[in-house]
Amino acid sequence: MKIAQQNIQEFNQKHIIKHKNRFDFISSELSDRSIDVDAIVQTLSDFQVAVPSWALGAGGTRFGRFSFGGEPSTLEEKIDDVGLIHALTHTAGAISLHIPWDIPSDAAAIRERAADRGLVFDAVNSNTFQDQSDQEYSYKYGSLCHVDAKVRRQAIDHNIQVVEYGEALGSKSLTVWLADGTSFPGQHNFRKAHQHTQSSLKEIYNAMPDDWKLYIEYKPYEPNFYSMVIPDWGTSLAFAQECGPRAHTLVDLGHHLPNTNIEQIVAILMTKGRLGGFHFNDSKYGDDDLTVGSIKPYQLFLIFNELVYGMENNVADNPPLAWMIDASHNLKDPLEDLMQSLDAILVAYAQALLIDRVALEQAQEASNVAACQDILQQAYRTDVRAIVAESRLRAGAAIDPVAAYRSMRLRDQLIDTRGLHVTATGL
Amino acid sequence: MKIAQQNIQEFNQKHIIKHKNRFDFISSELSDRSIDVDAIVQTLSDFQVAVPSWALGAGGTRFGRFSFGGEPSTLEEKIDDVGLIHALTHTAGAISLHIPWDIPSDAAAIRERAADRGLVFDAVNSNTFQDQSDQEYSYKYGSLCHVDAKVRRQAIDHNIQVVEYGEALGSKSLTVWLADGTSFPGQHNFRKAHQHTQSSLKEIYNAMPDDWKLYIEYKPYEPNFYSMVIPDWGTSLAFAQECGPRAHTLVDLGHHLPNTNIEQIVAILMTKGRLGGFHFNDSKYGDDDLTVGSIKPYQLFLIFNELVYGMENNVADNPPLAWMIDASHNLKDPLEDLMQSLDAILVAYAQALLIDRVALEQAQEASNVAACQDILQQAYRTDVRAIVAESRLRAGAAIDPVAAYRSMRLRDQLIDTRGLHVTATGL
Amino acid sequence: MKIAQQNIQEFNQKHIIKHKNRFDFISSELSDRSIDVDAIVQTLSDFQVAVPSWALGAGGTRFGRFSFGGEPSTLEEKIDDVGLIHALTHTAGAISLHIPWDIPSDAAAIRERAADRGLVFDAVNSNTFQDQSDQEYSYKYGSLCHVDAKVRRQAIDHNIQVVEYGEALGSKSLTVWLADGTSFPGQHNFRKAHQHTQSSLKEIYNAMPDDWKLYIEYKPYEPNFYSMVIPDWGTSLAFAQECGPRAHTLVDLGHHLPNTNIEQIVAILMTKGRLGGFHFNDSKYGDDDLTVGSIKPYQLFLIFNELVYGMENNVADNPPLAWMIDASHNLKDPLEDLMQSLDAILVAYAQALLIDRVALEQAQEASNVAACQDILQQAYRTDVRAIVAESRLRAGAAIDPVAAYRSMRLRDQLIDTRGLHVTATGL
Amino acid sequence: MKIAQQNIQEFNQKHIIKHKNRFDFISSELSDRSIDVDAIVQTLSDFQVAVPSWALGAGGTRFGRFSFGGEPSTLEEKIDDVGLIHALTHTAGAISLHIPWDIPSDAAAIRERAADRGLVFDAVNSNTFQDQSDQEYSYKYGSLCHVDAKVRRQAIDHNIQVVEYGEALGSKSLTVWLADGTSFPGQHNFRKAHQHTQSSLKEIYNAMPDDWKLYIEYKPYEPNFYSMVIPDWGTSLAFAQECGPRAHTLVDLGHHLPNTNIEQIVAILMTKGRLGGFHFNDSKYGDDDLTVGSIKPYQLFLIFNELVYGMENNVADNPPLAWMIDASHNLKDPLEDLMQSLDAILVAYAQALLIDRVALEQAQEASNVAACQDILQQAYRTDVRAIVAESRLRAGAAIDPVAAYRSMRLRDQLIDTRGLHVTATGL
Repeated sequence: MKIAQQNIQEFNQKHIIKHKNRFDFISSELSDRSIDVDAIVQTLSDFQVAVPSWALGAGGTRFGRFSFGGEPSTLEEKIDDVGLIHALTHTAGAISLHIPWDIPSDAAAIRERAADRGLVFDAVNSNTFQDQSDQEYSYKYGSLCHVDAKVRRQAIDHNIQVVEYGEALGSKSLTVWLADGTSFPGQHNFRKAHQHTQSSLKEIYNAMPDDWKLYIEYKPYEPNFYSMVIPDWGTSLAFAQECGPRAHTLVDLGHHLPNTNIEQIVAILMTKGRLGGFHFNDSKYGDDDLTVGSIKPYQLFLIFNELVYGMENNVADNPPLAWMIDASHNLKDPLEDLMQSLDAILVAYAQALLIDRVALEQAQEASNVAACQDILQQAYRTDVRAIVAESRLRAGAAIDPVAAYRSMRLRDQLIDTRGLHVTATGL
Repeated sequence: MKIAQQNIQEFNQKHIIKHKNRFDFISSELSDRSIDVDAIVQTLSDFQVAVPSWALGAGGTRFGRFSFGGEPSTLEEKIDDVGLIHALTHTAGAISLHIPWDIPSDAAAIRERAADRGLVFDAVNSNTFQDQSDQEYSYKYGSLCHVDAKVRRQAIDHNIQVVEYGEALGSKSLTVWLADGTSFPGQHNFRKAHQHTQSSLKEIYNAMPDDWKLYIEYKPYEPNFYSMVIPDWGTSLAFAQECGPRAHTLVDLGHHLPNTNIEQIVAILMTKGRLGGFHFNDSKYGDDDLTVGSIKPYQLFLIFNELVYGMENNVADNPPLAWMIDASHNLKDPLEDLMQSLDAILVAYAQALLIDRVALEQAQEASNVAACQDILQQAYRTDVRAIVAESRLRAGAAIDPVAAYRSMRLRDQLIDTRGLHVTATGL
Repeated sequence: MKIAQQNIQEFNQKHIIKHKNRFDFISSELSDRSIDVDAIVQTLSDFQVAVPSWALGAGGTRFGRFSFGGEPSTLEEKIDDVGLIHALTHTAGAISLHIPWDIPSDAAAIRERAADRGLVFDAVNSNTFQDQSDQEYSYKYGSLCHVDAKVRRQAIDHNIQVVEYGEALGSKSLTVWLADGTSFPGQHNFRKAHQHTQSSLKEIYNAMPDDWKLYIEYKPYEPNFYSMVIPDWGTSLAFAQECGPRAHTLVDLGHHLPNTNIEQIVAILMTKGRLGGFHFNDSKYGDDDLTVGSIKPYQLFLIFNELVYGMENNVADNPPLAWMIDASHNLKDPLEDLMQSLDAILVAYAQALLIDRVALEQAQEASNVAACQDILQQAYRTDVRAIVAESRLRAGAAIDPVAAYRSMRLRDQLIDTRGLHVTATGL
Repeated sequence: MKIAQQNIQEFNQKHIIKHKNRFDFISSELSDRSIDVDAIVQTLSDFQVAVPSWALGAGGTRFGRFSFGGEPSTLEEKIDDVGLIHALTHTAGAISLHIPWDIPSDAAAIRERAADRGLVFDAVNSNTFQDQSDQEYSYKYGSLCHVDAKVRRQAIDHNIQVVEYGEALGSKSLTVWLADGTSFPGQHNFRKAHQHTQSSLKEIYNAMPDDWKLYIEYKPYEPNFYSMVIPDWGTSLAFAQECGPRAHTLVDLGHHLPNTNIEQIVAILMTKGRLGGFHFNDSKYGDDDLTVGSIKPYQLFLIFNELVYGMENNVADNPPLAWMIDASHNLKDPLEDLMQSLDAILVAYAQALLIDRVALEQAQEASNVAACQDILQQAYRTDVRAIVAESRLRAGAAIDPVAAYRSMRLRDQLIDTRGLHVTATGL
């Protein structure tokens, strides 16, 4: 299923006058402050976030799952769904595959289908936190960290195979998220588990093609509830440094202990040249995997503040960042949820681009704390929605993607085509 | 499958000399302090904790589940498993049923099977957090709190039906745990959701037989990640007070925000005469559902300190407490895990029984803070394992239940009988 | 020191054109959505927040305190400082006294000085968390909860005396914040401490004049680090209900465990008719006492969402709420800090007034979760600063209070008058 | 004031029979398990923990301080107090000085006074979190991280001077705890602050004598409440690695976000050869600075588990660890509090020494999770108090130091000598 460009234009036509009025106002406001609005619009238009292949269906919790009609059941249908989102937003130009949930058996066909929708393949993701039916050894007690070398071997080989799948699709990076850890004191010898993990990661790193990057994700708990082998950015960074220059830390916003200052972590990783990528979501308690910007939009803005500054002052040579949404869509239409996330990302990015960095630096140098706060909040309180909408409009996408999606009754069409009760692979 | 009493005695025979030596030492130590050791042993022998019907198989997380061989697949087999535990520990003399996972189609037969193993039926548990295939309305957006009266009706009726199942088995109480809540700001009108929940609970309460009690559980988050309709003890207490005198708050150790002082909550609920029951488990991060006593044994002791004091000074007329283990057995043999939990409960209970309450009261009245701490730690640091073992020995159970279970190779027998790959209902 | 009205007008004159342009734009936007902008402006103009007498000087932490020049050293000077803020903002029309830090020896003169600056006296605050030099018994081990009736008597009498001071100034309410608690397990008999606190509060309540209200604050920890006698809203509510109809719970934003859903607490307290007042501040870790809106502005908006709805649907007859800022000004000029807080409060209030409540109710009734979120965010993302500025302008205050304060060089004048190194009483 | 050795012996004489009975029982128990009890006793006797010079008086919070009678007001008196503790425990054989609170003007005399009490000087501590009256630049906005090079210079020079004071006393290490950070978003350029801190630390490191070590402490918040320049072990480790081989991370138990797995951090730092020292205390909420072992004794045991293993398998060449108590004595007699802490440390250490490491390794290699837990709990549940008492007895200290202290009425003597109302420097 694809959206005809004409439908988007018809939708935009109905909202164009109001939009232009708003955009003109904010443009004039910002121009008065010598801000190049067109450049910002262009930056936003260019910004692309990957959608993972597991995010198109309804998610669940350990207490159950409530299905959503019209879910995609094949990789092809998942690509179609990302295509819908991309057509409406022009922000979702990449897919991130999860192996073995979405094995591309015919890589050329898959690649073509994606390309036809303007999509490329971003980082591929391995999975050693579940057992597959054809698997020789279980990951119940770990994978890359396992006490048994044969299990580690199997997990390493799986990662290498994931890289091969990715190569065939044009991916250039591998994301490793390890569920490895323990739920009880004494279960692990921490130091041995650390060293096993280190050598397994190094082996994977060494097996990657020379133009590939390795992203090492961290998480303090869940699904293990006493310790994780990569609990924090410090461990991830140490592993990355040990692997080599193309290994980087990946930050998932939900993977932190309560009250962690994530934006500072982002800044320090950029200082070290080791920030590799981002998994966007939002949360109140733990790894809640909620819609981006739905709980802590100011934190998101502060993170983008660091990212904008970091990309403009990239002295430590961080790679271009891999952006991905990693949320679970338990209650909303997954496509609406993803579009709300993409919108929230652009809003935060736009706000961060408005920060008066010269004034901020001056206030910081003068320890004028009240002014520092004010300068950030001036940007944050600005209503940037018209700028974001303009960035979509210029790219041929919808001024208001969710409203367009609803007005086109796309979910109904998906249900008609696919039925009410299907479940995406991996969910 | 049942354990022959003789096997237990043979096991005990091998350990009796060492045990007696230890028990004599601690008895003499405590007698010197005018502590009635026999009374403590008897109290521990009498103490019974319910095992829920869903706890006999391997649990999982939203990321997956690793099965364990020989899991029970029917209610009958679950009763057998609790029977094994009870034979070995003499502490697990009750089962807590979860409806609809374990519907007793032939109540008389089920009751007899349980009685044959020395088991009675404790509180029954309703489930409105999952949809069943034959269900008219979905609980995706709530049950007792739902905006739609028809959904609330269905959920109320389900609870009433659960009471009926319970009646047939001799249960005398209903535990309501509500997953109802929201994952996004704005999703609920908090006040309406509160009032719907209140009136639904009241209707269930009023439909219960006169000798039944209602236990209202609270939980701050999961599976909803922004709000829960019963997030804390304050809300549960308000609901219970509104329902009537036989409604009580149920405390699950894992259902609290970080750093909550649970023992104080226990004390205040007992002051109000509204503490109804306990779900035992342990956790480091959230509702981790780990083995009791595996992470915070001192907190468990402090809770038992309040319980012992509360039961001895029950001026507000709290009902006899409903004790249950509510853990998830993801990594260990569920039966071993449950026996470790039962043991940890008895250890904490025994330690709390050793507290010198006269000295403690004097130190408290004198604000002698160092002495207050010392008095608690004197009890906590005492090695009470021989007392706990003696309480089992006198009841005909095993001195060391896990060791006995292993020496009898009971898991192997279960696997032989049931196979390696079965899954318990509800898991 | 007072600000000449003319100075404010001169300041406004310089910014009026830009402001009017912005206000016209947002007015037209909102009028299109049938929102009565004038009514909102009036509501904001009428909104008054009390400034506590201890907030005018530099605060500190247990690690030290860095003074700020020109701090007020007498109650008179503190009134002057609140007068400055009120002249610039017209939002700070009340003072909240802390006894014994600010004893009004000549009540009539103090009252007149305040009236001259347009200020009234809000809730008075007692202090039983420190010992005064002339005090017979120490509060080291508690006050209203103390094991010794003589200490409780002294603390009750102090509270009654504070009411008398308040009466003389025209206050109509007493706020009790208790530091009482313990730092070590065993230190308290929780139940006795609870009951002592209850009866002490009741005695204070009964001693108040008939038109007075009692606000009972809660806090989970600090300065005691194991338990507090009023740790949460549930305990505060129970105490208030026991005292009588004019006893209410007071919510301080910083007094919660990590991740607490404060807005839900606000809603439930209003359902019960027991929300009495608010202490505004912001925090990332604990009771950090930072500038309002500096860390979690979206949470502040969500709280105002409940407050607006609650005030418009006050079926349970909550009293008019007592609003106060309770922050600590360690790094910024306290007056600038307070004006930033007042501004953030008005911004959040204005945003909450923009919520389309009809649409929200419809979306809630339809369980349209994505729409619920959208409706809130539509309001939140609106740039309401021109509306807030207009509300000040119409009231004769400054369009931008902090900028006006800086342009008038008021801090320099305060330093000239009072010197660089003074310390406010109580700091 | 000093304790006559004879007084201690008289005290011990009264308790020796009971003690010997207990020790014989536990010795025989452990010998049965082939544990060398004498070796454990010797290890405990040899273990020495430093007492910081600021810990001898009553501490406080930002809400106030309640003094304790007989507090030391000079460095000499502080040394005397540590001497008392050491005489009673023989575990407190070192003092850790805090400059400028305790400047040793006559180093030789101070050294002699300490030596006379069996004390040496451990790590010295600098202070750049408070301003001293004679100081040119303020640390209000930071010290080693400050935007202004002149402030950084002053702070670096202070640290170098502290090293000089330490040299004169025989210290061989400097502990740097930085309060530097921010309370508001935008206040710092995180990356610049990081780099300033790095270069300042390096300069201090380079100025130290060749046989000195630098300990870099981390803390996530307080006294700054948005960010700290060294918030976590990852940052501390990065700084230490950048400085050189004699720079190490120092772990303070209270300096972690909620739920942090501290024992894993200890293990990873030892893997890296970068664990330098420990600040012991306990806490429930934040940096509560409570008596060691009073809140989470099992966590303390798990940490000692890692330390024992780490010291026995020191492949990465960690230095001998610097042990110090860092607590605040707000409610208890500081000397009793310190002795309770020392006792809790020895108890945890003794328990950790009992762990059956061969069995644990086997259980870990077999992923026998239940057994891993059991092996740890076997050690933890053992009543080791008689072993700890024996270790004191053999060293000439008191079997029960707190009881001995009370029976000798030492606090009364201190009050007689020093008066009721003195305050220690720095408090």
